[in-house]
Amino acid sequence: MDGELNGDPDLFISGVAKIEEAKPGEITFIANPKYVKYLETTKASAVLVGKDHPSLSLPHIRLDDPYVGFLTLLNKFFPPGRPKFSGVHSTAVLSAAVKLDENVTIGPLVYIGDHVVIGKNSILYPGCVILSGVKIGNNCTLYPNVTVREGCQIGDRVIIHNGTVIGSDGFGFAPRGDIYVKIPQMGVVQIEDDVEIGANCTIDRATIGATILKKGCKIDNLVQIAHNVVIDENTVIAAQSGISGSTKIGKNVTIAGQVGIVGHVTIGDKAVLAAKSGVSKDVPANEVWFGYPAHPIMKQKKIEASLRNLPELVKKIHILEKIIMTWEEKMKELSHKDD
Amino acid sequence: MDGELNGDPDLFISGVAKIEEAKPGEITFIANPKYVKYLETTKASAVLVGKDHPSLSLPHIRLDDPYVGFLTLLNKFFPPGRPKFSGVHSTAVLSAAVKLDENVTIGPLVYIGDHVVIGKNSILYPGCVILSGVKIGNNCTLYPNVTVREGCQIGDRVIIHNGTVIGSDGFGFAPRGDIYVKIPQMGVVQIEDDVEIGANCTIDRATIGATILKKGCKIDNLVQIAHNVVIDENTVIAAQSGISGSTKIGKNVTIAGQVGIVGHVTIGDKAVLAAKSGVSKDVPANEVWFGYPAHPIMKQKKIEASLRNLPELVKKIHILEKIIMTWEEKMKELSHKDD
Amino acid sequence: MDGELNGDPDLFISGVAKIEEAKPGEITFIANPKYVKYLETTKASAVLVGKDHPSLSLPHIRLDDPYVGFLTLLNKFFPPGRPKFSGVHSTAVLSAAVKLDENVTIGPLVYIGDHVVIGKNSILYPGCVILSGVKIGNNCTLYPNVTVREGCQIGDRVIIHNGTVIGSDGFGFAPRGDIYVKIPQMGVVQIEDDVEIGANCTIDRATIGATILKKGCKIDNLVQIAHNVVIDENTVIAAQSGISGSTKIGKNVTIAGQVGIVGHVTIGDKAVLAAKSGVSKDVPANEVWFGYPAHPIMKQKKIEASLRNLPELVKKIHILEKIIMTWEEKMKELSHKDD
Repeated sequence: MDGELNGDPDLFISGVAKIEEAKPGEITFIANPKYVKYLETTKASAVLVGKDHPSLSLPHIRLDDPYVGFLTLLNKFFPPGRPKFSGVHSTAVLSAAVKLDENVTIGPLVYIGDHVVIGKNSILYPGCVILSGVKIGNNCTLYPNVTVREGCQIGDRVIIHNGTVIGSDGFGFAPRGDIYVKIPQMGVVQIEDDVEIGANCTIDRATIGATILKKGCKIDNLVQIAHNVVIDENTVIAAQSGISGSTKIGKNVTIAGQVGIVGHVTIGDKAVLAAKSGVSKDVPANEVWFGYPAHPIMKQKKIEASLRNLPELVKKIHILEKIIMTWEEKMKELSHKDD
Repeated sequence: MDGELNGDPDLFISGVAKIEEAKPGEITFIANPKYVKYLETTKASAVLVGKDHPSLSLPHIRLDDPYVGFLTLLNKFFPPGRPKFSGVHSTAVLSAAVKLDENVTIGPLVYIGDHVVIGKNSILYPGCVILSGVKIGNNCTLYPNVTVREGCQIGDRVIIHNGTVIGSDGFGFAPRGDIYVKIPQMGVVQIEDDVEIGANCTIDRATIGATILKKGCKIDNLVQIAHNVVIDENTVIAAQSGISGSTKIGKNVTIAGQVGIVGHVTIGDKAVLAAKSGVSKDVPANEVWFGYPAHPIMKQKKIEASLRNLPELVKKIHILEKIIMTWEEKMKELSHKDD
Repeated sequence: MDGELNGDPDLFISGVAKIEEAKPGEITFIANPKYVKYLETTKASAVLVGKDHPSLSLPHIRLDDPYVGFLTLLNKFFPPGRPKFSGVHSTAVLSAAVKLDENVTIGPLVYIGDHVVIGKNSILYPGCVILSGVKIGNNCTLYPNVTVREGCQIGDRVIIHNGTVIGSDGFGFAPRGDIYVKIPQMGVVQIEDDVEIGANCTIDRATIGATILKKGCKIDNLVQIAHNVVIDENTVIAAQSGISGSTKIGKNVTIAGQVGIVGHVTIGDKAVLAAKSGVSKDVPANEVWFGYPAHPIMKQKKIEASLRNLPELVKKIHILEKIIMTWEEKMKELSHKDD
């Protein structure tokens, strides 16, 4: 964090806080102009501001990006928690041929299946269950009660929150008369580096091959990813959304909350799907879609606007209809006069 | 339960049941007039009725509120179950400096982190994971596999059902070019007295400060509460609904199933949001909203009604259009005649 | 699998794969005509085809149903996995009076309550919690961290995926002034033979009586089934759908993803509810419904089509209005001329 300091370099800073909540001794930041007003009343002892911020009496540091500065300080003052346990806890159950790299933490009451490989510095919180053949990379965090089924692969620096399920069977059945026969789900889930997955999500294994979450994807809570879905790099999916089988999501796509996407479609790079959209077809790259069924947002907004006025439109049509009917009478009279 | 008994005071009652299912020896109730018809055929030996119920040959008790009477009897005949284990089970793992008040039950295979405090009579079922610094009040029940992350606070008489996650990281990332940088989530979750939370819910910790569920809130299964949400007293949220970050929900609000609410809005006291609504703006107190996007229900119902007739409206407009075009011809003829 | 072999009977087949991914030595199949084109380029050493498939140089087997043949081979080459542990693991906790039939597998860190009965060949993966009085049939698989509350009953050959909750309390509260009083949920959940339930689902116990999933139902991930719901045989429910209390679903119903159904309605046999539908009333047997609120699909599609054209319709009406207004002027002139 390189910035230009304006104020006493020996000022002792005890913490970081939002500008409206900061106490004496704390440092805060301004990234959004609408918070500038709080500068007059803040109790913070110092503030991070942009390079071009007007002059200021409060001790401050000028930075290219004060928000990034704030994040850096947050991480310094509140380093990501490590559990109090370390090493392999005596109540953890490890099967045969497990390979743990250096400094792996296996919490209490964790089960690790045979031939599982876990990279250095990774932490598994209590209650996690990792079945046979799973590979977990370096510096991963699996919070309590995460379960990973057989053969799934997880990259480096992956974070998975409590209760999330990786590698459950895809939902595949073949109808035979009135009953359904299970289609074995023999694939796996592959999760690449720097992916974060929220709590109580379900990521199904592929029928054959792999369900794939590529580098840097960020998935919120209670999200459903069906078998054979592929999500490309740096895509963000908000809570309670669901992606049906074999759909392909591009890079840097933004999917808001409670969106549903049917199977076997393609969502282009940098597309945005607004909250609660129901997507039933391919969405081109860079487009913003919305609605149920979803359409390009400009079209959908026009439709919505027309819809809001629909009851008035109906009234207007009734009025026009009456005018026309009245005239029809008059027209007939005129015609008769002409005869 | 004070009521007026009509019948043999020595009648032995062996159980309680719904009127259409009651067996001899059981007592039942009538709170809803549409069940009165079952009085003729019920096998129940007695019935709870309202003060003003017409005279009745079946032994009965007259009460101000027969349903409350029924609930009281239900609790008497079926006291809330307590697990067969008690005390701290030998397979539970307790870290340093855990404080358990009297009569706390820690089930098998539970993990309790350091400096956790649990109030008297509280029960933790098998598989729960409570991380460091958590406070749980008196008379709480945490069903199997509930997980609570660091520092979260839970009041008295709170019930949390299986698999629910309290205190997972809020979904916060800062875009930096094409990638996303995690914003540390340093707050906690505060759950006040008499809150009940269903199964497999996710309640995220705040970025800074607290995500708060106030007294008496009742939350159904698979509900998502994002970081920094505040839910005021006695609000009810049905299954699979999701509340986005920093939204404030008033007192005694009713949120039906599969509702989604965007971030940073306010829902007024006693508002009602109908099932599957997508709420994208503030909702005033006492209003009923519905739809996607949601609007006041009377407006939305008019729109829905117009929408149902839209195909017929389109046909009518085509007819009117034809009439007008036919006339235009005639008008021209008339005009020519005039010339 | 009876078929007509065309090719070398001694050909060694090492595996099965999709036609576009098959490698030499593997066998594949064609069930869908759109995959016929891959026959020219596939590296598979043999293929399963229909009885009437045109003649073919690649070694092949002719079958009534090549897809069923493929499933049969899949199961042969990839028999459903069994965990490496067997018997009752030393870290499992079994309460008093548990009855295990022959060849039951209780994995590490599992808790089994008192008077639980488990049928032969059933497997409980690590982290499962089964409370008192539960009955589980033969040949069942409960994946990691499944929890089943008191008294629930599970038939034969039932599969339940990770993290699913069976028998949590139904969501029942009686309003008393501004607060809500819990209505005890004393019923159970009954799951019949051949049911499969996905990951992180929630199936609530009945208030009184039972929530019932009949033979052969298939439930996807994150599905919510409320108290006293009855789902009849061979019904399929896709991910993230929710069924409210006391609703009855018929046989062989198909419910797509993210559908919501209100309480106390009936869905007829073989009805189909399209994705994200919000169903607020009874749906007759054999009908296909769609929309929010849901309506018969033909009606809904007409409405959708009209809706797509609504902005154009509004423009047309404005044009017609102008024409009419212009005429009104002319009509007046004509009328004056006539005077």
